[in-house]
Amino acid sequence: MNRTKLEKFTRHYRTLINQDLQQYLTSLTGNVNLVKAMSYSVMAGGKRIRPLLVLAVCHDLTGEITEGALTVAASLELLHTYSLIHDDLPEMDNDDLRRGRLTNHKVFGQAAAVLAGDALLTNAFAWLATADLPSGEVVKLIGCLGQAAGAEGMVSGQMSDILGENQKLKLAELQQLHRQKTGALLLYACQAGAILAGASSKIENLIIIYGQAFGLAFQIYDDILDETSTTVEQGKRVHKDQTEHKNTYPGLLGISGAQEALAQALEQAAEALEKLRSLGYECPLLKDMLGYFAGEKK
Amino acid sequence: MNRTKLEKFTRHYRTLINQDLQQYLTSLTGNVNLVKAMSYSVMAGGKRIRPLLVLAVCHDLTGEITEGALTVAASLELLHTYSLIHDDLPEMDNDDLRRGRLTNHKVFGQAAAVLAGDALLTNAFAWLATADLPSGEVVKLIGCLGQAAGAEGMVSGQMSDILGENQKLKLAELQQLHRQKTGALLLYACQAGAILAGASSKIENLIIIYGQAFGLAFQIYDDILDETSTTVEQGKRVHKDQTEHKNTYPGLLGISGAQEALAQALEQAAEALEKLRSLGYECPLLKDMLGYFAGEKK
Repeated sequence: MNRTKLEKFTRHYRTLINQDLQQYLTSLTGNVNLVKAMSYSVMAGGKRIRPLLVLAVCHDLTGEITEGALTVAASLELLHTYSLIHDDLPEMDNDDLRRGRLTNHKVFGQAAAVLAGDALLTNAFAWLATADLPSGEVVKLIGCLGQAAGAEGMVSGQMSDILGENQKLKLAELQQLHRQKTGALLLYACQAGAILAGASSKIENLIIIYGQAFGLAFQIYDDILDETSTTVEQGKRVHKDQTEHKNTYPGLLGISGAQEALAQALEQAAEALEKLRSLGYECPLLKDMLGYFAGEKK
Repeated sequence: MNRTKLEKFTRHYRTLINQDLQQYLTSLTGNVNLVKAMSYSVMAGGKRIRPLLVLAVCHDLTGEITEGALTVAASLELLHTYSLIHDDLPEMDNDDLRRGRLTNHKVFGQAAAVLAGDALLTNAFAWLATADLPSGEVVKLIGCLGQAAGAEGMVSGQMSDILGENQKLKLAELQQLHRQKTGALLLYACQAGAILAGASSKIENLIIIYGQAFGLAFQIYDDILDETSTTVEQGKRVHKDQTEHKNTYPGLLGISGAQEALAQALEQAAEALEKLRSLGYECPLLKDMLGYFAGEKK
């Protein structure tokens, strides 16, 4: 598959995901200001990497995307957006810019931002529970998502991140932090695709190895970008890691050390794909998605 | 059934719920400080009314409580506790006391309190997804819980409450606010009991009517208590509704008007129970639980 095919896939499904998100948010009958605050951040034009990963895995393994898979993908974006809103709060990272716009609490106030996040998190599960899929699959997906996002996953990583500010973490600690904070949800995205595809546990495990490596690469790449790019390019405040004494890969390993760690992670992902290929799964989308980290897409 | 039986039921199952909660929290392998903050608020000794409602409905309809039902009940307390932690935040109701102890953010700081709430909310769903029940039941329960707690339920009510401060709501608006903010989760508790019991839709609907009336009575009673009792009795700051220009039933209807509204809600609940009785369901626990609002238990 060439680059054009991934781009076509991405463009097509990003549009469908955005339509699903818009439709879901519009259908909500709750407090108007709450729904407005939720929609503001969800529809701020993110890249939709997590939903696209769900669909790419699913498509690479089965060649098709069902309505149920779209719901699984789009509901994940609600959950991801909640995490951005809460991370940006004054008591957390205190950020004013996100996805090129003012952060949620800057527009709607701090109370509304907490509540918009709470609602997005809750409704991610509510929406996922309505997915047009066998009940057993839905329960497995919800269990995996809760595990990835909760006290043993993303929230745990965010807590470690906040507590780790102003103290130098060891590389192993930083890896553990990122495995939870960023990695867990990207891993879930891949695993969800495998569950949707009805993959055997052997295939699911290889997809999980790919997902872990993808998540690690994603965080290292993000750290490197934070050091080397501008606010306009990123649509959010950059160089903030340094200012806030955050622990990062470039901080620990230097830029070239971080680039080497990124290359290693990509190598791990490629190895998993090689094993999948030997089992009859070519996985062209997942292969091309690794191009994201070559600076071809930001 | 006499009062002693309800007390025995309550004591027995409150102990089991607390054991389940303690065990679940202890099993979490996430960031130690995060789990500590979560446990602090969950194990602060609440009355466990919502989980007990789940089990009372289930027991009144089937005469038994399964392990799966206990998980459904206990996971609801995680979600309820998250809502208390976030409601108490400085940007929300800014409370220092809850369940007789310092609020979460007073002990662990504001960032940790947001995260502890986020994790409790997320893990409520994660835990519920592991309940030893048929998948179809679990999916229905998760859908109902998400609906009750999210953008069309509890969070919507909290948003209306915050926006409604300093402006006088009409009675219908106040009722709608409370139906979402407090009522939705109590209603879910009753509905969950009916789902666990495998009740017919006719029975489930009557339980829902009981749950709606119970939720309304609960809020009116709470408003009355806030006006008439002391901080020591309540374990949280009282008379705050007035100070913060919150809309309340006594504020709108006066104390005696509020007491009348309470009596009406209890009458509605009793009517639903009467219909259940005519269909062969005596529901002694649900009948006696209405005694909560007679000031017999606080």
